[in-house]
Amino acid sequence: MPKYVYDFTEGNRDLKDLLGGKGANLAEMTNLGLPVPPGFTITTEACNTYLETGDEPTELRDEVSEHLGALEKEMGRKLGQPDDPLLVSVRSGAKFSMPGMMETVLNIGLNDESVQGLAKQAGSERFAWDSYRRLIQMFGKTVLDIDGDHFEEALEAAKQAKGTDSDLDLDENDLRALVDTFKGIVRDQAGREFPTDPREQMDFAVRAVFDSWNAPRAILYRRQERIPADLGTAVNVVAMVFGNLGMDSGTGVAFTRDPGSGQQGIYGDYLQNAQGEDVVAGVRNTLPLEQLEEIDKPAFDQLLEIMKTLEDHYRDLCDIEFTIERNKLWMLQTRVGKRTAGAAFRIATQLIDQGLIDIDEAVSRVTGDQLAQLMFPRFDADADKEQIAKGMNASPGAAVGKAVFDSDRAEQMANSGEAVILVRRETNPDDLNGMIAAQGVLTSRGGKTSHAAVVARGMGKTCVCGAEELDVDLKNRKFTARDGTVVEEGDVISIDGTSGAVYLGEVPVQPSEVVQYFEGEIDPDSDEASDLVKAVHRVISHADEKRQLKVRANADTPEDSERARRFGAQGIGLCRTEHMFLGERRQHVERLILAEGDDERHAALDALEPLQREDFVGIFTAMDGLPVTVRLLDPPLHEFLPDLTDLSVKVSLAEAGVGADKGGSDDVERDGKLLDAVRRLHEANPMLGLRGVRLGLVVPGLFGMQVKAIAEAAAQLKAEGKDPRVEIMVPLVGAVQELENIRDEARGILAEVQESTGQDLGALVGTMIEVPRAALTAGQIAEAAEFFSFGTNDLTQMGWGFSRDDVEAAFFSRYLELGIFGVSPFESLDREGVGRLVRIATEEGRAARPDLHVGVCGEHGGDPDSIHFFAEVGLDYVSCSPFRVPVARLEAGRAAIVGAGSDSR
Amino acid sequence: MPKYVYDFTEGNRDLKDLLGGKGANLAEMTNLGLPVPPGFTITTEACNTYLETGDEPTELRDEVSEHLGALEKEMGRKLGQPDDPLLVSVRSGAKFSMPGMMETVLNIGLNDESVQGLAKQAGSERFAWDSYRRLIQMFGKTVLDIDGDHFEEALEAAKQAKGTDSDLDLDENDLRALVDTFKGIVRDQAGREFPTDPREQMDFAVRAVFDSWNAPRAILYRRQERIPADLGTAVNVVAMVFGNLGMDSGTGVAFTRDPGSGQQGIYGDYLQNAQGEDVVAGVRNTLPLEQLEEIDKPAFDQLLEIMKTLEDHYRDLCDIEFTIERNKLWMLQTRVGKRTAGAAFRIATQLIDQGLIDIDEAVSRVTGDQLAQLMFPRFDADADKEQIAKGMNASPGAAVGKAVFDSDRAEQMANSGEAVILVRRETNPDDLNGMIAAQGVLTSRGGKTSHAAVVARGMGKTCVCGAEELDVDLKNRKFTARDGTVVEEGDVISIDGTSGAVYLGEVPVQPSEVVQYFEGEIDPDSDEASDLVKAVHRVISHADEKRQLKVRANADTPEDSERARRFGAQGIGLCRTEHMFLGERRQHVERLILAEGDDERHAALDALEPLQREDFVGIFTAMDGLPVTVRLLDPPLHEFLPDLTDLSVKVSLAEAGVGADKGGSDDVERDGKLLDAVRRLHEANPMLGLRGVRLGLVVPGLFGMQVKAIAEAAAQLKAEGKDPRVEIMVPLVGAVQELENIRDEARGILAEVQESTGQDLGALVGTMIEVPRAALTAGQIAEAAEFFSFGTNDLTQMGWGFSRDDVEAAFFSRYLELGIFGVSPFESLDREGVGRLVRIATEEGRAARPDLHVGVCGEHGGDPDSIHFFAEVGLDYVSCSPFRVPVARLEAGRAAIVGAGSDSR
Repeated sequence: MPKYVYDFTEGNRDLKDLLGGKGANLAEMTNLGLPVPPGFTITTEACNTYLETGDEPTELRDEVSEHLGALEKEMGRKLGQPDDPLLVSVRSGAKFSMPGMMETVLNIGLNDESVQGLAKQAGSERFAWDSYRRLIQMFGKTVLDIDGDHFEEALEAAKQAKGTDSDLDLDENDLRALVDTFKGIVRDQAGREFPTDPREQMDFAVRAVFDSWNAPRAILYRRQERIPADLGTAVNVVAMVFGNLGMDSGTGVAFTRDPGSGQQGIYGDYLQNAQGEDVVAGVRNTLPLEQLEEIDKPAFDQLLEIMKTLEDHYRDLCDIEFTIERNKLWMLQTRVGKRTAGAAFRIATQLIDQGLIDIDEAVSRVTGDQLAQLMFPRFDADADKEQIAKGMNASPGAAVGKAVFDSDRAEQMANSGEAVILVRRETNPDDLNGMIAAQGVLTSRGGKTSHAAVVARGMGKTCVCGAEELDVDLKNRKFTARDGTVVEEGDVISIDGTSGAVYLGEVPVQPSEVVQYFEGEIDPDSDEASDLVKAVHRVISHADEKRQLKVRANADTPEDSERARRFGAQGIGLCRTEHMFLGERRQHVERLILAEGDDERHAALDALEPLQREDFVGIFTAMDGLPVTVRLLDPPLHEFLPDLTDLSVKVSLAEAGVGADKGGSDDVERDGKLLDAVRRLHEANPMLGLRGVRLGLVVPGLFGMQVKAIAEAAAQLKAEGKDPRVEIMVPLVGAVQELENIRDEARGILAEVQESTGQDLGALVGTMIEVPRAALTAGQIAEAAEFFSFGTNDLTQMGWGFSRDDVEAAFFSRYLELGIFGVSPFESLDREGVGRLVRIATEEGRAARPDLHVGVCGEHGGDPDSIHFFAEVGLDYVSCSPFRVPVARLEAGRAAIVGAGSDSR
Repeated sequence: MPKYVYDFTEGNRDLKDLLGGKGANLAEMTNLGLPVPPGFTITTEACNTYLETGDEPTELRDEVSEHLGALEKEMGRKLGQPDDPLLVSVRSGAKFSMPGMMETVLNIGLNDESVQGLAKQAGSERFAWDSYRRLIQMFGKTVLDIDGDHFEEALEAAKQAKGTDSDLDLDENDLRALVDTFKGIVRDQAGREFPTDPREQMDFAVRAVFDSWNAPRAILYRRQERIPADLGTAVNVVAMVFGNLGMDSGTGVAFTRDPGSGQQGIYGDYLQNAQGEDVVAGVRNTLPLEQLEEIDKPAFDQLLEIMKTLEDHYRDLCDIEFTIERNKLWMLQTRVGKRTAGAAFRIATQLIDQGLIDIDEAVSRVTGDQLAQLMFPRFDADADKEQIAKGMNASPGAAVGKAVFDSDRAEQMANSGEAVILVRRETNPDDLNGMIAAQGVLTSRGGKTSHAAVVARGMGKTCVCGAEELDVDLKNRKFTARDGTVVEEGDVISIDGTSGAVYLGEVPVQPSEVVQYFEGEIDPDSDEASDLVKAVHRVISHADEKRQLKVRANADTPEDSERARRFGAQGIGLCRTEHMFLGERRQHVERLILAEGDDERHAALDALEPLQREDFVGIFTAMDGLPVTVRLLDPPLHEFLPDLTDLSVKVSLAEAGVGADKGGSDDVERDGKLLDAVRRLHEANPMLGLRGVRLGLVVPGLFGMQVKAIAEAAAQLKAEGKDPRVEIMVPLVGAVQELENIRDEARGILAEVQESTGQDLGALVGTMIEVPRAALTAGQIAEAAEFFSFGTNDLTQMGWGFSRDDVEAAFFSRYLELGIFGVSPFESLDREGVGRLVRIATEEGRAARPDLHVGVCGEHGGDPDSIHFFAEVGLDYVSCSPFRVPVARLEAGRAAIVGAGSDSR
């Protein structure tokens, strides 16, 4: 039979699952001999049984009676005892802190008799009646689900009648009358009397705390914070102590060091003659904690000593809630305190230096998300700003520049040294040059998984997307905000990718010193390096030592490759080749598609080949000596052509002799021909259509041209004495036969180039595993593949059967709301479904080919939780955007330290 | 060390894998004591080693020498012995017969010396030189890869010179000259001399037979016939016997019973003074086998005796090749003979009656494909026909009717009793009423997986699709054939869904008596029942007794349900509800989509509910007492709206004041509003978009309305004393949470209806398993599902990552050509990939819920091979189109008889 109730003397901090964070830490402090009011904790198991069955477990009542009896004995008073009542608080306390989300009821044990006893005890009639009215109010709201406004209105009326707006001015008689009024509210609203039996009050309150686990706000909070829904909450029943018994009493909060900077010192607030709720309600201004020294030196000294004890004991920053009741200090709560990203790094290394933790522990205490936060520039918080719109915080950072409405113009202006913000309704692959050139990207449409958002995040470029309040007029190169503000091309705007805010004019920006460090602009060993940079350096260096996972980058250009290398990438895990078909090269692709016969097709391919070769020369040079995985063309060809609907409308209008685009008859003919091709290539579901290896098998010479360009580029570098390490990756393979076809063709071309150049290229041929069937037949596929790289984006799309493009607009928010996902499976890998495919493919691929090299190149490669999963499965590397490389290095190190089955928190 | 060569005395008919069909049967006949010319077989293993390594296994030469030595000893002559030569034939013989696909070389052993010996042996110079010239010709073509025309032309020239067109008129001198000419051709074309060493001739020929396994025509044939590519061929080396030594010699083929009808008797052909090739070449007309009795009574009697021996031994129809050399009968080949579908059923039951096989064996000897063939009506083969086009044979059968170009018109005309053929460019879901009304469907676009083809097959309706020679002019209600023939609305045409032919005018049709039997129109026990009907009845009854798999039907209407029931369906496995949103009801769907606010949405749903209820009442009534699985709405809502591109063009033209559709301003406004909705709902990949359970979770009330209609229909039947057995199926579930949401809503509604009507509905709630993730997390999903039904179409689409709509046009034919698929995975379940998901989900679903009911409702449910797989996995039922139900019953029975791991052949 489970034990459902633990006295504070029975628990400890390791029992958070069972006792919740608050209960476990109260027990820990009790056992440390700190002054904690006595009490006991009802376990999360009791809560979960209640939530599942709709009833408390039968044994719970007796266990509570037993522990309450012990508490009464210790306190020498009985709960609600008329002449000298024991009062208790009933507080929630889940494993993870959910501040303000769940219920608390104080002053339990008061009724018409015991209120007299409390008055006598406290020596104050006013205090006793005020406590009683608070109980009825909290109980009414929390337990009986009465709208709190009823009580507030009555309180307000009482104050008005008294001609005051402070409840401190209400005297015992006013409060006594208010108690009657409140009882009436309970009667009217809940259809029952306020329960006067103290034990009944307590049982009701416990049940209300249980129920609050499934309150909508709690569900929403858990979802946002990725807290599992099935943990349940514990309930703490604690003897009341009062900070509101006079000026020799009070309540406060404190941190053992500055949660903003990590500096040790005295950080906290204190409020005299008050209870915790008053601090939250902001009734009066709090005092800085230092002033407690003057008010109550013994209590202050004792508090400092306790803080030292706690920090040494917890070996971390702690935050504390305490109450002083008539000069007696009581500890009401402690926990490892939240801190800013910067403080997390500083504290972790400080604690090493203090000898409290070792470097392994320090690395485990900082997260990739914190490191990522430190890598974005920010707007100066104190600057004046004129916000004109708010969109989605699609890619964090702060960017300032002149608004520009098309990508070519953005590129021109950037080339002439101007900072620009690219503003579009939405972006598409053609905007890549503009996005690269711009400081940031602003769109009026599309969500966090829109093209703009995904590409910007990949580049580490600031992006605000879906700012629907903006009316973007591309033709006239301007946008209009809802308040009528018009921004024309060249006007300066500032966008905050961390908050989604759009500002008119220039807002001062602070660059990230952490990025400067990774870029090699700050030497971490020099004096100019800040504590933060030194801390980050120390942590990441150790993570690098520890990790088994290698980290590569996804990069398609020499520039990105160079940055990735500076950021610590150990190769390129994904070099996409589709951007090499855009811009000016689009004409060749169009020729390729419209080609009538082999000759025309070859001519188009021949024109593309040297251009591709040059691209590869650049990338291989940047990554000299490190592996570069080049993915052969993946997207369907019609992506390089105009949109079917747009073109159909254009052609129809031209044929009817109207429309904006009245070109010459040549144009009309060309458009008509193009439309035929677009129609022919149009697919109902392009994601499931003619792309990847299918394209390579259907369009003769296409993949061959790419392989030749790769081989010749590598041979050129070899001839120059460099060391290119080429891996050719075939996308979208579902059956080993597909791969065998392309592999044989590729090997033939590689052999030809090797022969004609005399260079031994040593290139590998492998495949992406991104189609579920590929994972399910990985044993076969490994026979033909020299490496695997998981394309977890497509694997997620096909494994779940939803397309990333359509998902967000259509139903994703609803799914998050319903709790079907705690987090988007495109953001963090779905371990149970998609992860199972990754596991199957890795195991069976390696069984067939023991030296198979296995990595991941989807966006999940840069996601902390996913990295821990990939480490557990035993992949060789993750590959992510250059900007995420340091994050991945850190998380890979943490995964190695924390061990298998871990997540990133 | 493997044994590469088997003497005929060493083999037997069970060694087909190793010796090929011909070799195994020659050995079997040898051991039966039948007169088989002596010889030996080189194994498929030798062939495969050769094909893999490019060289014969080293031991092969010695083994061949040994067996050749034995053969020479037995024959008392040596191969090519100048004075008295042994000649041999070298023939291919794979496990499965591949007629005409592979190589044969006869008369090996002849050269300038031994031709003299042969002349002496045979007593005919002419015969010897003719044999020699044939050797050079066959060897040149087959072994040396010389274009056969060179030899034909030389032969032609010789005949011209002689002034004849029969080669029988060429005398020994002409033939001697021709041998010289042929040698010259070899020299010129192959750049080498014709090899005169007999053993070299033989070794060359063996190698040529090996090589012919990978000849393009052989590869193509295997792909069509679904013969694995890695079997290899055996090679038979047999002492030559000659049917062309005079009128006392000859060659023939025979069947032990009529392969067309199954009747026992003497069926075959005989040709005097000829070799096998002459029969094939059609040099002279063959004689009916009966006439051999007059020509050579002893040989005839011996042949009949052998045929009886063979049939008793093989317990099946055998076909035979034989040669008579100077009154001596030689058996050259036998095998179990091919037969028509009808004969297969008749023979199988005849053999039971003859006591040769039992009923289990009889069932295993007929196939579902044969049964399916018997279920289609056919055109009278002898009728005059004027073919005007040929399309794809998309759904077999024969249909005659008036051409009609739109579905409503088709329905009208059908209602007034006219037979119509619906002719469209392509069909879409709106054509359903027309397709139902029509005798057959003809389209000018789309392949075998187009909408028209899939739906027609589902209905068992004749369909020819993609008849690209036809120019269909919908507006003017006519089509034009390539030859200029114009068919206008009302003109009669005939279409043959089995061949793809389109005929002008009426071609007489013969209905299927097997269908009449299944429809209950023919009593199999009555005298009017044909042998075929009796045979089918006997076989299918036994299959029903044996099978463990239940068979249900996919049916959406009462009519289909009734037919399915007559055809033996044990329930409905898939009742789609989307057709209930079409036709006149589309207006409500449009209202639903355009609804602004809850009230409008509810109004639209309220209008649909009673219509749906009536649909269900009809179907539940038809299936009274049997389970009906109703799938909640699956397709995305925009499928019920106009096409984005079409509507965009229409609106643009209307706005420009031009275009065909100049409606009033109301129309323009409505179209504009519609276009907004279409744009909003447009999805880049609708297959991966807002459909199925997602729709149910996003559009409040939609699934609820459907569940209510189902529940009320069931309650109504219950009140009438009927026994509806309802299973509510949630489509496209990927995560258990999705299902839980809908299940809870559905259970609530069911409870309400139960309460309000007082009827206990006992309805189940379950899910389709059609998303890979659902299969991978089936253990979780089974906790919330009372049944699983595999949607193998979507599971194939998502598992392979290609959409059925896009696949065929884009790359499927290329994939079949490259051998990446032997057969489309949409036709026959991919066991390794998609099948693995089926297996995982079944095992893990049942582990979580032992009484989980598991079926399949994709099109694979009617595919023989797939049915055997489903039986092996242990599903409870398959569900297929009503027309395929008998096929599924038969194959399920065969699977039970043949056992696990079987395929349908």
